[in-house]
Amino acid sequence: MTILGEPERASMKTAIPGPRTEELRARHGRHQDASTVHVYQDAKRSVGNYLVDVDGNVMLDVYAHIAALPVGYNHPNLLGALRSGRFDWAAGFRPALGVAPPVEWVELVESTLMRIAPRGLTKLVTVTTGSEAVENAIKAAFIRHARVRRGGAAPSAAELAACMENAQASANAMQVVSFEGGFHGRTLGALSLTRSKVIHKLDIPAFAWPKVRFPDVRFPLEEHAAENRASEARSLEELEATLKAGKGNIAAVIIEPIQGEGGDRHASAAYFTAIRTMTRAYDVAFIVDEVQTGGGATGALWAHAAWGLEDPPDIVTFSKKMQLGGYYSTEDYAAREAYRIFNTFLGDPFRGAQLEVIVEIIERDGLLDAASTTGALLVSELVDLGARHPSIVSGARGVGLFAAIDARDPEAQARLLDALRQRGLEVGGSGTRSIRFRPALVFGPRHVAEAIGILEDACKTIA
Amino acid sequence: MTILGEPERASMKTAIPGPRTEELRARHGRHQDASTVHVYQDAKRSVGNYLVDVDGNVMLDVYAHIAALPVGYNHPNLLGALRSGRFDWAAGFRPALGVAPPVEWVELVESTLMRIAPRGLTKLVTVTTGSEAVENAIKAAFIRHARVRRGGAAPSAAELAACMENAQASANAMQVVSFEGGFHGRTLGALSLTRSKVIHKLDIPAFAWPKVRFPDVRFPLEEHAAENRASEARSLEELEATLKAGKGNIAAVIIEPIQGEGGDRHASAAYFTAIRTMTRAYDVAFIVDEVQTGGGATGALWAHAAWGLEDPPDIVTFSKKMQLGGYYSTEDYAAREAYRIFNTFLGDPFRGAQLEVIVEIIERDGLLDAASTTGALLVSELVDLGARHPSIVSGARGVGLFAAIDARDPEAQARLLDALRQRGLEVGGSGTRSIRFRPALVFGPRHVAEAIGILEDACKTIA
Repeated sequence: MTILGEPERASMKTAIPGPRTEELRARHGRHQDASTVHVYQDAKRSVGNYLVDVDGNVMLDVYAHIAALPVGYNHPNLLGALRSGRFDWAAGFRPALGVAPPVEWVELVESTLMRIAPRGLTKLVTVTTGSEAVENAIKAAFIRHARVRRGGAAPSAAELAACMENAQASANAMQVVSFEGGFHGRTLGALSLTRSKVIHKLDIPAFAWPKVRFPDVRFPLEEHAAENRASEARSLEELEATLKAGKGNIAAVIIEPIQGEGGDRHASAAYFTAIRTMTRAYDVAFIVDEVQTGGGATGALWAHAAWGLEDPPDIVTFSKKMQLGGYYSTEDYAAREAYRIFNTFLGDPFRGAQLEVIVEIIERDGLLDAASTTGALLVSELVDLGARHPSIVSGARGVGLFAAIDARDPEAQARLLDALRQRGLEVGGSGTRSIRFRPALVFGPRHVAEAIGILEDACKTIA
Repeated sequence: MTILGEPERASMKTAIPGPRTEELRARHGRHQDASTVHVYQDAKRSVGNYLVDVDGNVMLDVYAHIAALPVGYNHPNLLGALRSGRFDWAAGFRPALGVAPPVEWVELVESTLMRIAPRGLTKLVTVTTGSEAVENAIKAAFIRHARVRRGGAAPSAAELAACMENAQASANAMQVVSFEGGFHGRTLGALSLTRSKVIHKLDIPAFAWPKVRFPDVRFPLEEHAAENRASEARSLEELEATLKAGKGNIAAVIIEPIQGEGGDRHASAAYFTAIRTMTRAYDVAFIVDEVQTGGGATGALWAHAAWGLEDPPDIVTFSKKMQLGGYYSTEDYAAREAYRIFNTFLGDPFRGAQLEVIVEIIERDGLLDAASTTGALLVSELVDLGARHPSIVSGARGVGLFAAIDARDPEAQARLLDALRQRGLEVGGSGTRSIRFRPALVFGPRHVAEAIGILEDACKTIA
């Protein structure tokens, strides 16, 4: 899995952000919000795990465009496929996939998207982003909830009239349960489920949907076994009370396998299995939001595969590494009337065609096993780092390459992030004090060693 | 503007849908909703205005993937740009444009996206679809509304805590006004604004936002001048009453220049100018939704340019022909804090890079003027068609190529649509009885003649 042309290591020419980045930020900021930009990228010179910025800085990238880089920058097989004309069917116009899809789309659905579908899920809706994936997933849950409630009867004339006035009482009473610290997107439906940060939610109207505490699992797990179990039990009790109180109106429960924005919080397979059992008992959709965890980082294409559920989730959402958004569902959650789940583009076949090549690379190069092995090495090195610098770094944890450490507090998090970037590690925060690792699947042992070296140096300087 | 390799005319080999389409529908339908598909397309053989389907049928396309085809199929300049490596910067990975944008993105924003910006609008947010464009536009309006209301004060601790519980009363009371028959998307915020069809809204929770009647303008305009003026006046009165009743809580009014899903309903420049004046007086955002009208079909890149507003709209949304979604706004409606309007991808630079070439083609080939001229020819021919077949076709209307006719009722609409498709015209409905024309900008006089010939034949057969 060596990538042709990948730099040997990070090398810094300027402070981050550099002067060329700041010039571009000033230009860019005249029209778009440029304040969130880490660096402007030299897209064509970036290769594999290394981002090259416009100041000539070469950075080892463990943030990977917010976990959206499956096989690194400019993988030769992706560029080769582009050159060979393999994507031409998807590049000469942008089709409405629900109206006149290219025949290649059907082949892509069958040979790639359904081949990698989570076990037990046979239906697929494609859209373009994670927010749209979640919006449509909950729509599917509402539609199915109403169908079951009507028991085969048609909607009443009063309901049909009321929905056009935004006043269909039976629909407006429907709810989706999400978890404190969860992140599910930023459009108004998805945002009503997001519970991670004030800046996302302030001043935006929200549906009055209930929230349940997420377990406060501590690491290392073996040292905190009893309190972790108790914390999970409390969360499950709260969920059951919420389902009981909202009975008849709750259409779905949505949860991330690992809270990817809310501080990389984890929970056990037993916990998630209990939610599956409970949602089945209350007959509400169990939606697993794999927008950030899906696509291979955890060592499996779907993080929830590790739970070993006998009864699969009802709906699994995706985006990011998958390059287009969407969700898989059971037959029961597929809409039965045309146009209820629909939009103009329904995804982008160009990114879908790239996904086909990406999946080929993942399979050919054994990148899922590599993510498991390299990820275990990364987490064990992060644990050791914490042992060497306990006042700076703690709570090392991860599944595969989906890993994190904690700083002391938000101020220490910001200092550590800056120190790492100055040393050539492109990295991002999670929650209020964690540092997240979301490298591409081509992140290997030599990249772990380099990242740990940079972390070590940063810890020494900060100490 | 002749397109190399474009077929000379439509030619049909089978009924529509043909046997190969039905085979593919059966395969596709195992995993996705395939019931909405007109035909499966031979993407690489489709050229210019002609869609080639998998049964070898060549159809003249005036639906154009729900108005999303700016320069037809496989324009040689787009394919040439792909081959020459011009899109390589955007094709070797899918970036998070808010984190590490390629330098080419800044150039694209400046040299294309801002160069074609509606007059008076200096700020830009890019996303991926029309629904996301609308969701983020209304978020911008809510955020600005709250900022003005606070008069520079920081949000209270109580507000910050409440928003995390979906219980920020001041935000939850905020509203956006939309119009009966309007279509603004299908995610939960956008869907609360959509008022066109029951099938979009049934069983989905909605915000209790108010609706105003859209004018019921009749064509030909000169025959209905007095009643049209009265109808617009009634709509404006209703809007003013709504703004008065919701004073302090209404953050925005959103409207399409032509109702693109709700039956191709039009209104006068004076009507829209009055809305601009009224929204200014009540200090609420005037959002013009140009997802379907934008990108050139009306003979201008932005349909609202024809209103001659001195005071521009606050926000203009786009998607479809623009190939990526987003909105332009004034400085006043730009978020002032990082991450309030944000998501992972913030659009797709590959489709943005294609837009750059598309705009070059539009300018070089004078496609806006052509859309005006050819559109005027199309509408005049549709008027004549209606005169020849008054019991079948009426209400011919259009601005540029954005045109429509009415059938008698929904049943007649369905019959006419089918008769047209059987004769090689790929076409779509609008509202309950209209036929919409949304051809690509490369639709020329010879295509008008061919389309009218097919319409004539269909009308004769149905009569």
